[in-house]
Amino acid sequence: MRTVNPIRQIVDKLRDEDMNPNKSKLSLSIGDPTVFGNLKTDKMVEEAIIKAVQEGKCNGYAPSMGRDDARKAVATRYSLKNHSVKMSDVVICSGASGALDICIQALCNEGDEILLPQPGFSLYTTLAGSKGIEAKYYNLKSNDAWKVDLEHARSLVTSKTRAILVNNPSNPCGSVYDAAHLKDIINFAEEFKLPIIADEIYADMIFDETEKFIHMAELTDTVPILSVGGIAKQFLVPGYRVGWIIIYDKMGYMNQLRDGIQRLTTLILGANTLVQGALPYIFEKVEPSFYKNLNRSLKESSDYTAERISNIKGLSAIRPQGAMYCMIGIDIDMFDDQINDDVEFSSLLLKEESLIVLPGQCFRMKNFFRVVTCPSKNDLVEAYDRLEQFCARHLRK
Amino acid sequence: MRTVNPIRQIVDKLRDEDMNPNKSKLSLSIGDPTVFGNLKTDKMVEEAIIKAVQEGKCNGYAPSMGRDDARKAVATRYSLKNHSVKMSDVVICSGASGALDICIQALCNEGDEILLPQPGFSLYTTLAGSKGIEAKYYNLKSNDAWKVDLEHARSLVTSKTRAILVNNPSNPCGSVYDAAHLKDIINFAEEFKLPIIADEIYADMIFDETEKFIHMAELTDTVPILSVGGIAKQFLVPGYRVGWIIIYDKMGYMNQLRDGIQRLTTLILGANTLVQGALPYIFEKVEPSFYKNLNRSLKESSDYTAERISNIKGLSAIRPQGAMYCMIGIDIDMFDDQINDDVEFSSLLLKEESLIVLPGQCFRMKNFFRVVTCPSKNDLVEAYDRLEQFCARHLRK
Repeated sequence: MRTVNPIRQIVDKLRDEDMNPNKSKLSLSIGDPTVFGNLKTDKMVEEAIIKAVQEGKCNGYAPSMGRDDARKAVATRYSLKNHSVKMSDVVICSGASGALDICIQALCNEGDEILLPQPGFSLYTTLAGSKGIEAKYYNLKSNDAWKVDLEHARSLVTSKTRAILVNNPSNPCGSVYDAAHLKDIINFAEEFKLPIIADEIYADMIFDETEKFIHMAELTDTVPILSVGGIAKQFLVPGYRVGWIIIYDKMGYMNQLRDGIQRLTTLILGANTLVQGALPYIFEKVEPSFYKNLNRSLKESSDYTAERISNIKGLSAIRPQGAMYCMIGIDIDMFDDQINDDVEFSSLLLKEESLIVLPGQCFRMKNFFRVVTCPSKNDLVEAYDRLEQFCARHLRK
Repeated sequence: MRTVNPIRQIVDKLRDEDMNPNKSKLSLSIGDPTVFGNLKTDKMVEEAIIKAVQEGKCNGYAPSMGRDDARKAVATRYSLKNHSVKMSDVVICSGASGALDICIQALCNEGDEILLPQPGFSLYTTLAGSKGIEAKYYNLKSNDAWKVDLEHARSLVTSKTRAILVNNPSNPCGSVYDAAHLKDIINFAEEFKLPIIADEIYADMIFDETEKFIHMAELTDTVPILSVGGIAKQFLVPGYRVGWIIIYDKMGYMNQLRDGIQRLTTLILGANTLVQGALPYIFEKVEPSFYKNLNRSLKESSDYTAERISNIKGLSAIRPQGAMYCMIGIDIDMFDDQINDDVEFSSLLLKEESLIVLPGQCFRMKNFFRVVTCPSKNDLVEAYDRLEQFCARHLRK
């Protein structure tokens, strides 16, 4: 019963049968880049899987920590200039969700506390709560590029705090932190001797072509970082369920934790072996142009989103710098009596415009809503047209 | 730390470097039918995956309970004459391990008790222990076809007992229960109002061609059965990590449990979507001759195993009726001072003959060892020749 998905509780109230029957359903709510039909994985990914099937050498059990070839491929790809990653530093998991589940369980016992971002991906809450671990939520600043409010985080630390989870680039915010801010977070972790779970599943999904994505581990030799990644978003195959943990720990603080992680991997032997076996080929063969085109397309959609929102009275957004989401603020006092918070806003938007967005309360952020920026341009045009008309209609007179 | 794999603790003492350098390594220890090279999955399984890749419709997230097409396919295949299974009765999981993990967690809280078979698959112990659930082990009768000792089981039931797990066909025993014995177990469960977790991952892997495998749910309308299955063994693809739970519950006792199971599926969205999408095609296209040939081959190896063992002084075995294992008893008093239990037996066998078997203590069964019957005939001949010479050499004078 303590395994609770906060999105479900809120979204279950937004039912399809409440839509406007005269308007087609348009969804900006699903964080799955494959459902809209415009973003497709690379041919080389498909080729890699087919090769693994045909060679017939990937049908058996993998070791619980993952196939050697997959672990080596991840180690090579994610070695940083200050951290040479070895195979033994990599744990292949059942998606990034499985990786997060193992990180949180390995670091926290029941009754311990973990610092989570707010707004933040709701799965963190589900995973922690399921194990009886208490989540303490640190604020991200909506008026300052969704940076971590470190003063607020500081006020949450107790003797039971075991880790801080940092999500960069962020779901739901679309923010990407610069080196200076990441370093501030690392210093905070260092001060309180907290290891960092760095949810970097959207690594490399950044829009500024002059910048490279900065892994947190690049900026520290002393604070242990468990970096969580996967192929779900970058290669547009979230259903494949192959993610990983990379343990960056130059000081060797985490040897006992490694043992804990290893134990937890024996429970379900997570990740599909075909995809594991295909991983080296995928990393080798998918051309950089694939990511570039994907990022350009996401940037275009994000910029378009920010631009349209800036012209809608009553709404505001911080222009996303990465990932595939945008958080949109609702100036709730500007709206009429039918709209008193984000849930009412989203619910009425569904009823009148058949347009689905996720209320900010799903991410613990009242009076915001999240849109995904993956749909095709045509769909986005139509969606924001409807949103604009809806807002105009409901502004307080 | 409470996530413990009992096999590992014992097997870690049997190290490759302790082998006889003059004899090639021969392993009868790994429960993976694909590693020996003689058993291969069906072409149609490969075709089904390739088709799923090429159609490009299985890359996105599946619902947490599994893709509709996969759930429907399992429901159709496992509808019994007394139970019409609906899609909503099926939960697709990350392998049968993931399915067992969810069943055990859904039925038991920390501090609760579960009845597990002894000898039994060590993962049950790992899963229960990991959640702080207390395992109580009921004996299987080594002198009566590994049947459940129901008197012993009865003595273990307390007010904290939440479920009984039954594994049929059995790993490690290779036993297959008849309807009468299954009915006895069901009556026991009924008496104590215990739901049954039926680990039926080896369903249909039975050697008597005149018999059909009996699912426990066929024999009861009143005792709720959570049947755990998967494609790992039957289709020889354990690495694919697609298993399932089928909830057989005509009386509707399990509605709250269904909610619990659903909640637990949201944690990691387990199973690979390509394999899920391929499932209907696999079920439809793989010919019955594939299973027949597989079962014949396993029967041949099992019979050969039982026959060879019956001619080795100091050892004895119950002829397996299904699955891919055989438990072999060691008459320990007949052996010399170097061999005082199954671990010493296995360890010396490795050292002198480079032959690997799993000590019975891995399954909580002292003075037995388990062999797998999947290797090729040639390998088995060689293995049992070595075993025979080893035993002859170490019989007490």
